[in-house]
Parts: sequence; structure tokens; C-alpha cells
Amino acid sequence: MAAQRNATGIEAAVSLLADRLGPRLATGRSLREQHGHTTTWLENQHPDAVAFAQSAAEVQEIVRICAAHGAPVIPFGTGTSLEGHVNAPLGGISVDVSGMDRVLEIRPEDMDATVEPGVTREALNTELRATGLFFPVDPGANASLGGMASTRASGTTAVRYGTMRDRVLSLKAVLPSGEMMQSAARARKSSAGYDLTGLMVGAEGTLGIITELTLRLAPQPEAVSGAIASFADIATACQTAQEVIQMGLPVARMEFLDEAAVGYVNRSHGIGLPAAALLLLEFHGSPGSLAEQTETFAELARDNGATHVAWSSDPDERSRLWRARHEFYLSALALYPGRVGFSTDVCVPVSQLAACVTAARAKLDDLDLVGTNIGHVGDGNFHTLVFVDPADAAGRARAETYVSWLNGLAISHGGTCTGEHGIGQGKMAYLERELGPGALAMMRAVKQGVDPLNIMNPGKIFAF
Amino acid sequence: MAAQRNATGIEAAVSLLADRLGPRLATGRSLREQHGHTTTWLENQHPDAVAFAQSAAEVQEIVRICAAHGAPVIPFGTGTSLEGHVNAPLGGISVDVSGMDRVLEIRPEDMDATVEPGVTREALNTELRATGLFFPVDPGANASLGGMASTRASGTTAVRYGTMRDRVLSLKAVLPSGEMMQSAARARKSSAGYDLTGLMVGAEGTLGIITELTLRLAPQPEAVSGAIASFADIATACQTAQEVIQMGLPVARMEFLDEAAVGYVNRSHGIGLPAAALLLLEFHGSPGSLAEQTETFAELARDNGATHVAWSSDPDERSRLWRARHEFYLSALALYPGRVGFSTDVCVPVSQLAACVTAARAKLDDLDLVGTNIGHVGDGNFHTLVFVDPADAAGRARAETYVSWLNGLAISHGGTCTGEHGIGQGKMAYLERELGPGALAMMRAVKQGVDPLNIMNPGKIFAF
Repeated sequence: MAAQRNATGIEAAVSLLADRLGPRLATGRSLREQHGHTTTWLENQHPDAVAFAQSAAEVQEIVRICAAHGAPVIPFGTGTSLEGHVNAPLGGISVDVSGMDRVLEIRPEDMDATVEPGVTREALNTELRATGLFFPVDPGANASLGGMASTRASGTTAVRYGTMRDRVLSLKAVLPSGEMMQSAARARKSSAGYDLTGLMVGAEGTLGIITELTLRLAPQPEAVSGAIASFADIATACQTAQEVIQMGLPVARMEFLDEAAVGYVNRSHGIGLPAAALLLLEFHGSPGSLAEQTETFAELARDNGATHVAWSSDPDERSRLWRARHEFYLSALALYPGRVGFSTDVCVPVSQLAACVTAARAKLDDLDLVGTNIGHVGDGNFHTLVFVDPADAAGRARAETYVSWLNGLAISHGGTCTGEHGIGQGKMAYLERELGPGALAMMRAVKQGVDPLNIMNPGKIFAF
Repeated sequence: MAAQRNATGIEAAVSLLADRLGPRLATGRSLREQHGHTTTWLENQHPDAVAFAQSAAEVQEIVRICAAHGAPVIPFGTGTSLEGHVNAPLGGISVDVSGMDRVLEIRPEDMDATVEPGVTREALNTELRATGLFFPVDPGANASLGGMASTRASGTTAVRYGTMRDRVLSLKAVLPSGEMMQSAARARKSSAGYDLTGLMVGAEGTLGIITELTLRLAPQPEAVSGAIASFADIATACQTAQEVIQMGLPVARMEFLDEAAVGYVNRSHGIGLPAAALLLLEFHGSPGSLAEQTETFAELARDNGATHVAWSSDPDERSRLWRARHEFYLSALALYPGRVGFSTDVCVPVSQLAACVTAARAKLDDLDLVGTNIGHVGDGNFHTLVFVDPADAAGRARAETYVSWLNGLAISHGGTCTGEHGIGQGKMAYLERELGPGALAMMRAVKQGVDPLNIMNPGKIFAF
């Protein structure tokens, strides 16, 4: 178990890989830094080298060399992770699979597609355009599908289309031994032994490197419409979202933005939304069913005291709003030059949402923090973004206090510290608080069985 | 690793458990035989004793005693498994959790419920009647929910409501060490480390004993209607089912019965269905959407040359048909006194279904076997039932030839040897053919990490 940096082994592996890969093994400092963590306040811990793999066979070769020398292997897709997943705290080799970006097969008759792990979700959807199908998981960032699987990503559409857990039908991966593993057949359901697909999805690269994914696609909706509703307070907006779910209204997206978030969107994108808590919805269906859904929602929102309700099936208007929502993090950050963002990711049972978001707002104010709450409220998942000047030690400490308090709040309400970002390095301290020692013992036992040398992405999820 | 019977350890464990449990440790032969496999042609291998557990703490105590003495532990719910999961090939203690049958909490606002593992699906649905919610997974048998989770069961409603993989939100289990494990929070999605919920669902009791489940419920449909359509041949019926899925028609159930199966249903339940391949559908929704769905289906069926199409929203007529479908296996078996049933369980990509079911029928005829094909065709899952006289060695050999041929056919078409029954003892030979050595190596590594003494349900899924 490599709890300490294995300098000798890494050096040997780098040398062998350089011989094998030539210019596709990079050791330049800036490239290595780009392959460490770059997106949030977590420290950048760069690898010793970056191997640009071009095929599953090459990934196998790289892993075998690293295994023989006890060198850590850190899978890398697009680097959009928020929790330090791509960091190399013990050094080692970043295996960049962004060049493995072929869509291998699309099977419209089975509504599935097989892709290499470096294909991004936008690239896949471009390929799918003519088929009448699309890949619905949308975390905002144009992440690689291998990375999205590894963090069990979801995003704005999970309320309707599920998360990566629901959308990966089977996968191939290189195990820490270098052996190739296929997790499942392509059938839509299976009881064939342990659910290795599910085990690899969300394993954050600690059990192997995904080299191929077969994904469940969805039919492109016949029609799309959007709706917004403004509310005097957070609790009513969240309560309305909860009632939408309980009614079984098949919303495709349902996002919450608090008043501060609406202010950022208005300022950075020149949109004139009312300064109030906002629900932003999208409906997918037949034109007839959309009209029915939109009306049902509008009636519910008004019954709950919404101060402003509007809807539109104009694609330009809709995409402007959703672009503002998706670029929210970066555009809000841009309003605070020199500050860095903390992003939380709690997810609570839907019945607990209104209380938790309301308490979160009050706590931010108590701690005198600049922050805002947005969320995928159909799932009970919301993010607080806190903007902190890294030079302000006291502010940073207060932000850390807030994060810890919020994770504790979610856990005490039956929720999780991470709905979709993963544990990575950033949330290791909270996992045991959330699930208790039994779950940690079982995770460590699985890791011990599959990766006894601890070479696959060490220092993530749990101490091992 | 207990590849051989550990007589001394078992004797010691039985003696300690008898002291601890008194009359709730049973060693009478007939009770032990009832706790071995009883449902299909697989040999009955009964345990040395049956422990009737009444609480999670008691399950922990039993497992700790067995672990200390290396005695096998075999979880038991209702014994409706079809693949020998409850057999005790190395002897040991059957832990019967049927007495842990309390519905612990129903949370209508979150549409979930927490139950003990011995609650059956019918008992849960009885409890839920007044809430407007139901638990939708329906494998036919009134199985225990712990057992359904352990085999990753599904059944007639999976096409709409998913399988146990989709419906278990979190669970508690006693690990082979005796430690208690909680797999996840109650939030509707989570990225908090390895998906232990998914790992336990389908693990067939080889990684621990489930002591509590939190399940996702569904709203009771506003209205229900049924439809049937008869087709001149198997291929057209299956092709129609495939087109239903491709159109995105949200059928709640879609079952296929071949002509032989229709004959059994007619004879045993006095129903007068046309002697032809049959699709049997159920729709759930608002009265308006049901009319639309039923019409869309009827039009499609007629376009595909259906010889007879009928629909009904009369609950008595519908439930008579579905009862016939659910009791199919036992009533067909009753027509062949003295014969035993082989049930296959292949599941293929939907596009491969028509070809596979057609080939299956021809192969049965070629081998001169008495058999029939029925299936959950929306998922690509179908069962051949073969009725064999156990005294007819040649007939039994031909049935085994058929099973092996069919599993190979499914695997070569991208499918699995088991869509919903599990591997158990009966399909161990096919798992490696289906997934290859890498998946088996990973499953064994997980088992080695979690249950190094191999006390949890040994001799199931894979040799270890």
C-alpha cells in the first residue's frame, strides 16, 4: 500500500513509458499542472508524467508497467471534476484518454451507443443528431463520458432521464492488474452476477480505467417548452418543486436559483428576471402533452403564490436562459476577480429541501459569506457557491465552517454530502460521517480485493 | 476458503446457536429440506440447521458465531428462487428472515418506504393501499423483498418501472464479519463513494445478509387498461413489441406468449384466446392518455397483421388474464404430472428478440422437447419452459442441450443468460462464457475482499 510517494517505482515506470510511447509521454511542467486539479480551491497536485493513450490495448500496457513498479495511475478525461479527482497526491502517471474519442457504434433499433471514454457528451450528441435520439445526462460542463461515468455525474436532466448510474448499460475497463474486464452484456437488464457496471460507475477511477462505454439513449423529444416562476421566498419555491414531483409531472428539468443567483444571471447575461427565488423548468413531450404540463405547473405555481409565471416554446429564448444557468458558475466567479469558488453538492430527500435551502441561506448570512444557492430541486440536490478571497484566511475558514455545517445538515436530514460531484479529495472527511464505519469497511474491502497494490487513483474517496 | 464441508465448525456453530436461539434454531429434517432448493430440477441440498432471526442484531450475532467457526451462512426469504440460491452445498446455517416482516416507515412525501427483508411485495402493497402509492416490481411469485433485491428480480412491470436495481434506494446489511453496513443515504441520487446498494442488489447473499431496505415507490396509476393482440407468427409479435419500445409508448407491462403457452392458459383457466402468438399489454395513466396509448398500439398491431386485437378497462377481465399469466408456470406444470420444469431466463437486445425467440421455437421442435416460450418482451427477456420426465435420462439430456444452446444463442446476440433469476448454482457454467475472465476475476476479487473466509452463501455465482 502506497501511503508514501514511491519515487523509485515512478521513475522506472516513467522511463519505460517514455520508451514505449515516445512523444505521447509528456513530462513538461505546464502540461503536468494542467493534468492536476484546476477547477476549485483544492491544491494542484500534478502527476510526474502524462501518458496520452490511444487505445484500450495501450491503456493495458501502461497499467501493466505501472503495476509492475507500484506507480500510481490517475485516469484523466477533460479535467472538469470539482473534487480533486485528477490530482496526484503521491505522484504517478496521468493517463489522458481524451484521444480515445471515437463513437464506435450507434444502434438506433436498441437505442444505445458504444463509445470510447474520451468522447464528450456534446460530441456524442452531435453524432446522434440525425438519429432521432440523444444522450440526456447533462452536468453542464462538456465533460468526457468516461469521467462522467467515473463520478456518477448527473445534472439538470436527472429528474427525468436519470444519472450515469441509470444510463451506462455496460462498460469495459482495464483492471489494476492490467486485465481487461467487460462488466455486462448489452441486454437492457441482467441478473448475471455482481453489478460490475454499477460498481465502476462512481468508483472515481480507483478500481480501473474505463476504456469503453455502452450508453442508453433517449428519443429526442417531439417538442420542448420552458417555464419560469418567481417566488417571494426560498421555501415556497422549493415546496412547489416538491409538489411537482409528488404530482408525477414528468418535468425534464427543474432548477432553482435563489435571489442572489438570479442577480448574477441578470448581470452577466443581461436578462431581466424578477429579483426573487426562481424555478426554471423544461418540459419534453408531444405538443399536446406540453400544453397540459405547462398549464398544470402554472396553476400550481400561482396557487402557491408565485409572483411571476411565464412560459415559452421559443428555442432562442429558452437556450439563452439555459446557457445562463449552465455558465452560471463561471460567470458568477467572473464578477469577483481574484476570488475562488467553493461548491457544495448536498442532496436531501425532497421533503427536506425547503427547510435545508432556507437554513443554508440563513447560515451564509450569519457567517457573512458571499454565496448563492442553486439546485436540481427535482432530485433534492442543491449547490451553494461561496466566493472567497484566497488571501483572506478568516474568510476561507468561515467558508470551510459553512461547508462542514451544510454537509452535516444534509446528513442529519437523511441526505448525502454529494449528489453528483463525487467524493474525490474534497469530501473524504464527510463520507464516514454520512454512511458510518460499515460502509467504509466494505468499500476498503472491495478496494483491497481489486487493487491490493493501491495503484489506481490513490488518495481518493477514502484513506487506504 | 471452504471448498469442502467444515463439519467441526458447523457442529460448533449449531451448538452455540441452539443455546442462543432455543426453539428458533430448528434441525428437523423436513424443515431443513424446505429450506433447501425446492422449485426446479436442481437437487435439494439442505442446511444443517435453520435459524429464524427476528432482528438485525440477531442476524449479526448469528453471522458472528458462524464466522468464528467458519460455518456457511445461507440467507432465506420465501424460497421462491429458481436457481438454487438457498441450497447449502457445503452445509451450514440457513438464516430465515421471513419473521423480519415489519414495514418500518412509509414516507408518502418522498415516495419511499423502509421495510425489513422478510416483507413480501404483496404485504407491502397491502400496507400501501391507502397512500396512493405502490411498489411496482412484480416477479409473479409473492417473494420477500430481501430475496428480490438479492437476485435483482424484475418481472412483468420492468419495462415501465425498472428492476430492483432501480427501486432499492439504500439498504442495511450484516457483512460477513458481522459488522452492520448502511449502503447509502435516503437521497434520490448520490455520488458518495462505491455504489454499495447496487453491489448488494444481485449479490445473491454472497456478500452479506440484507436486514433493511428503503424502496422507491410509484404513484398508483389513475387508470389502467389492457390490450391483447394475436399474431400469425412469433417474429411478427416480437417485432411489434420492439416497435412499441422504439415509439416510446409507455406500456406498463408487455408480455409475449407463444401458441403453446396460449394453449396452456386456455386449458388451465378456461380462457378462449385465439391459438396464436399473443402480446398481452397493460397501460397505466390518465383516462385520456390510456385511450391514446391503446389506440396507438391497436393501430400498430393491425398494421403488422395482427389477426385479433382487443382491449378492456374492465378490472375483472384484466385480472383474470394476468392471473393466468402469473400462474402460468405452475398450471402448465400441472398438465404434465410427474414432469419437472426447466426454466431459462435469457435477455437479449430488443432488436435481436424476434430472431432469438423464433430460433428457440425451432430448436425445441428439433430436439423433440415439450416446451413453450413466454417473455417480458419490452426488455428483451424471455423464458423457455421445458417439461421433462426426470426418469427419462435421454429427455433430460436433450433439455440440458437446449438450455446450453439457448444461453449460447443469447450470448452470441449480445445478451445474457439471466435477465432476472440470477446465476445461483444453475447458471454458473454460463457466466464466464458471457462476460469473459476479466469480469469473473473482478467478482472473485470483490468476494475475496469482503468475505475472505467464504462463509456467505458459498457455491453460488462463481467457484471460489
